[in-house]
Amino acid sequence: MKIILKPEIKHITESLDLFPIIRNGFIAYSEGKSVVPPVGELSFKNPPGDVHIKYGYIIGDKYYVIKIASGFHQNEKLGISNGSGLMLLFDQKTGKNVALLSDEAYLTDVRTAVAGAICAQQFANEIHCIGVIGTGLQARMQVEYLKKITACRKVMVWGRKTEKSEEYSSYMMNLGFKVRICDSPKHVTDTCNLIITTTAATEPILFADDILPGTHITAMGSDTPAKQELDPNIMEKADCVVADSIPQCIERGEISHALKDGKLTKNNIVELGHVLSGQHPGRTAQDQITVADLTGVAVQDIQIATAVYESFMENES
Amino acid sequence: MKIILKPEIKHITESLDLFPIIRNGFIAYSEGKSVVPPVGELSFKNPPGDVHIKYGYIIGDKYYVIKIASGFHQNEKLGISNGSGLMLLFDQKTGKNVALLSDEAYLTDVRTAVAGAICAQQFANEIHCIGVIGTGLQARMQVEYLKKITACRKVMVWGRKTEKSEEYSSYMMNLGFKVRICDSPKHVTDTCNLIITTTAATEPILFADDILPGTHITAMGSDTPAKQELDPNIMEKADCVVADSIPQCIERGEISHALKDGKLTKNNIVELGHVLSGQHPGRTAQDQITVADLTGVAVQDIQIATAVYESFMENES
Repeated sequence: MKIILKPEIKHITESLDLFPIIRNGFIAYSEGKSVVPPVGELSFKNPPGDVHIKYGYIIGDKYYVIKIASGFHQNEKLGISNGSGLMLLFDQKTGKNVALLSDEAYLTDVRTAVAGAICAQQFANEIHCIGVIGTGLQARMQVEYLKKITACRKVMVWGRKTEKSEEYSSYMMNLGFKVRICDSPKHVTDTCNLIITTTAATEPILFADDILPGTHITAMGSDTPAKQELDPNIMEKADCVVADSIPQCIERGEISHALKDGKLTKNNIVELGHVLSGQHPGRTAQDQITVADLTGVAVQDIQIATAVYESFMENES
Repeated sequence: MKIILKPEIKHITESLDLFPIIRNGFIAYSEGKSVVPPVGELSFKNPPGDVHIKYGYIIGDKYYVIKIASGFHQNEKLGISNGSGLMLLFDQKTGKNVALLSDEAYLTDVRTAVAGAICAQQFANEIHCIGVIGTGLQARMQVEYLKKITACRKVMVWGRKTEKSEEYSSYMMNLGFKVRICDSPKHVTDTCNLIITTTAATEPILFADDILPGTHITAMGSDTPAKQELDPNIMEKADCVVADSIPQCIERGEISHALKDGKLTKNNIVELGHVLSGQHPGRTAQDQITVADLTGVAVQDIQIATAVYESFMENES
């Protein structure tokens, strides 16, 4: 078993063109060419924490992948990162463990950011201002990865804590973005035609009346049944609602809330892989509102872990 | 993260008194003091293989444990073991990974054998002859671990292949057992008052008419919905049917087949931990027939992994 640590994983990952890797994962998933069981889950109360086990394989590939990722939000108080994680690769022919990627959740962060950028590229109109709800790691990485698909460097950010928004602003300015801190989420929705929600909120932050025609929203914060960032009326108002995984989004994330509230029917949900493969058109007019709900699918982990491991082995040989 | 390899794990495990450790695990489980989600599963067709992810924690303990174990039955042809596995320990307070036990399925084999011996001790009458169906690794280990709870060294074994039965016999004779190879499963049931079934069969091998009063059967081979070693009528005939985990046995193993065939009702299933804690009497008369259905519960993995890791850390300090 090869054990690959975060610094090496990071080095390899930066050299990979992840966009086709993740795109192909979503397409394989939507075409039924992968096996991705429901997410395994553990919850802790004191201190609060969530663990997700995402696993599966692409049929005919060399490896299957099991990822364990956790978020313990009070870790901050201890001066350690909230997120942790590792990925394991096993041989599809023998079950033997071939590698442990001790990525400390880095690959999850990257594949999530890449999925966001893929959605922006696929669904947004020409981006004139990037709106961000939240100021955490994904609020940074989602925007950072947009560099690869747009020339826009204007960012408007809203966060609950001014201090965090200021930190966010100075971090992103160092990456070459012009950042404006907003007083309210509405301030963001009024100006930006691409909005990314990245919080761990459990009550809506964005409301239907505030969403302008031509907006694309990528909601990537809510990945459990409890979390929610969007007013379900947004789903009713949207012209195209996209799920990274329909079965998963029925159970968790924004779409699950909209279904429960009767603001959306299952037939009106499109799966990301079907748009990426061209089977569904996605946005068909400039003034449409589109929403992509990203809950994170194991196929992204399978694809990124396999790519990193194969690159590692090539470099070794 | 500590990485502990099989030779060291084996060395530590041999020094531990695992009976109270595993007993306490079953009791905690039945008393609702643990969190054990349903087993995660992956299946492969070509070549055929099964992967189980068992995970969970005892509330208030230090660690949570995730175990990945696989069986790829054609590995034999490649000269490598069918079973593979590893266990991961994480901190319940932070989610941080503290250890990887690369046990190659050894700990699963041990905790399974210990559970079998605990059942024999709890449910069997005084053992005068040990009956074994199957000749594989568990057929050996189940009997080996009985040494700790009985003075009986008489074994009767039945396997499909004579060659394998002979190998089994010579292996067990080296461990101090007197082994007789049987022509049929009935030959085993006619003579033994403790019978352990350890095969990967998908059709019954033992039948109700052949089970004599006073027999205890531990069925540990079937751990998936498809596998089956016992005629469901045995469950109807039995005076006490014990499940290592009621929710799990409803879905997989012998009990699931008996429920489906209407030979057993849920109310007639007793959970192992409730007998071990004294809440249920288990066997109440010598002439009763008792059956324990072991599908393998994550709480066993949690207990053994924690004990091995803590012993490792003590030795290190």
